[in-house]
Amino acid sequence: MRTALAIDVGGTKIYSAIINEKGEILSEVEKYHTPKTFSEIKSLFEDIIKRHEDEVEIIAFATCGAVNNTNDGILGSTGNIAKEYPSMDFKALSQKPVYVENDANAAAWAEHIIGASKGMPYSVMLTLGTGVGGGIILDNKLYKGKNGAAGEMHFKMCTDKHRKCTCGSWDCFEAYASGTGLKKTAEEISGNPEITTYDVIEKNDREILDRWQNDILEGIIGLANIFDPDVIVLSGSMAEFVDINYLEKEANKEIVTTPFKVVKATAGNYSGMIGAALLALGVK
Amino acid sequence: MRTALAIDVGGTKIYSAIINEKGEILSEVEKYHTPKTFSEIKSLFEDIIKRHEDEVEIIAFATCGAVNNTNDGILGSTGNIAKEYPSMDFKALSQKPVYVENDANAAAWAEHIIGASKGMPYSVMLTLGTGVGGGIILDNKLYKGKNGAAGEMHFKMCTDKHRKCTCGSWDCFEAYASGTGLKKTAEEISGNPEITTYDVIEKNDREILDRWQNDILEGIIGLANIFDPDVIVLSGSMAEFVDINYLEKEANKEIVTTPFKVVKATAGNYSGMIGAALLALGVK
Repeated sequence: MRTALAIDVGGTKIYSAIINEKGEILSEVEKYHTPKTFSEIKSLFEDIIKRHEDEVEIIAFATCGAVNNTNDGILGSTGNIAKEYPSMDFKALSQKPVYVENDANAAAWAEHIIGASKGMPYSVMLTLGTGVGGGIILDNKLYKGKNGAAGEMHFKMCTDKHRKCTCGSWDCFEAYASGTGLKKTAEEISGNPEITTYDVIEKNDREILDRWQNDILEGIIGLANIFDPDVIVLSGSMAEFVDINYLEKEANKEIVTTPFKVVKATAGNYSGMIGAALLALGVK
Repeated sequence: MRTALAIDVGGTKIYSAIINEKGEILSEVEKYHTPKTFSEIKSLFEDIIKRHEDEVEIIAFATCGAVNNTNDGILGSTGNIAKEYPSMDFKALSQKPVYVENDANAAAWAEHIIGASKGMPYSVMLTLGTGVGGGIILDNKLYKGKNGAAGEMHFKMCTDKHRKCTCGSWDCFEAYASGTGLKKTAEEISGNPEITTYDVIEKNDREILDRWQNDILEGIIGLANIFDPDVIVLSGSMAEFVDINYLEKEANKEIVTTPFKVVKATAGNYSGMIGAALLALGVK
């Protein structure tokens, strides 16, 4: 069976594994802290690839940052990773073919092929973590937009410049629906700037959690009205704390489009690597 | 040259004309008030079709309401038109083939083929009138979603249940960016429930108009981040009152995706009929 060496590149961790065209992980997953500098990151990639490239057909990156439509480079800046990272020449890292996709897009593809949105042509995945990642699949194809940057969940939740977003703008969905957003909501409701998401979850503070969940609901309603999707998939560490049945029921009451599902992701923590491998291997 | 009989069905007016595959209107445009009852609407359709069907290859409807993916019927309810209207059997109206599309989708297609978004594969059109219509074109194809209802511009502008929307939910883009939204903004700022959009425009009340325009800007930013489009096209009677250059400049400062244009529609008042005819005739 055909295999890929998958490498998942985040701002804090880098993972790698060998994955086959069924999305099965065949090797032990290697885990690294993301190095601080561009040259250290590049050296780590070279080391991983050197040790494994002979075993696989293609190298598949799932990376932070928007990835271009030729799947070989990063568009613009990428937040909390070495600032020269977007200039990485991925193709030059191996003699084998190299395929690059955004991590949230790759994870959405994994759900589409082997996970929670399998068999459903139209899906939007929201990865709720420190930030919010988005992956959009339309008519069984990953939707990337004109240059590859589509699927950024930076639409506004209010228009009065209330909460600054990491993107530099104000009041984006990410600034409310993410873990960071939950902390901010907790600070606003409790008046305590030291409160953590852990405190909120530990105490099961329903006022705070319900406000946060309601913001997620409002975003889901907007996306369903725009896309008329089969399903909206929630993944990421924060997805554990939402009531998926409540979101599905309430969203379906509010939309003007047609009924849709809300489900949790099932492809697991390595869905970014799995999706990148499946995309690189051309599995549809 | 191949031609279609195009019929544009709105809640207040119905238009018809013969249109060729270049999008040229070949006949005088017939104009009617939309009848109150289902049977009167059906009779009007039958009358128009009877007089013209021999001259054309196909009948093309641009209609209010979401249209299914087989382009022969309406999904769900459609606002201010006879409540049985969605049950119309369009195919039964003529011996010739009949093709039905949503009016905002059809208008977006007209812009894509002969208007402001010509040559641009990824566009979102916002029709700013009494309400807000949406038409989405991705990779040179009309985007309809799983059942045909996609492109509804009912995403939230705030989450505190401030302004009721015609869709039954709260604070949708439509409730702010439309002409009705401008009136509501004017009422809120002036404290005068009698104020009209005409008053605001006549006096060029910048506080009110700027607030309204800013809400349109916020919506455009969200759509650009979701779709990474080539262009967002503004059409409809209210598009006359926005500063298109300002919107383009400000939106491009805020997005995390790649630069895009904001332009006004150029296909004219009959773009719904033109787009429906082009779609019915298979012009891509």
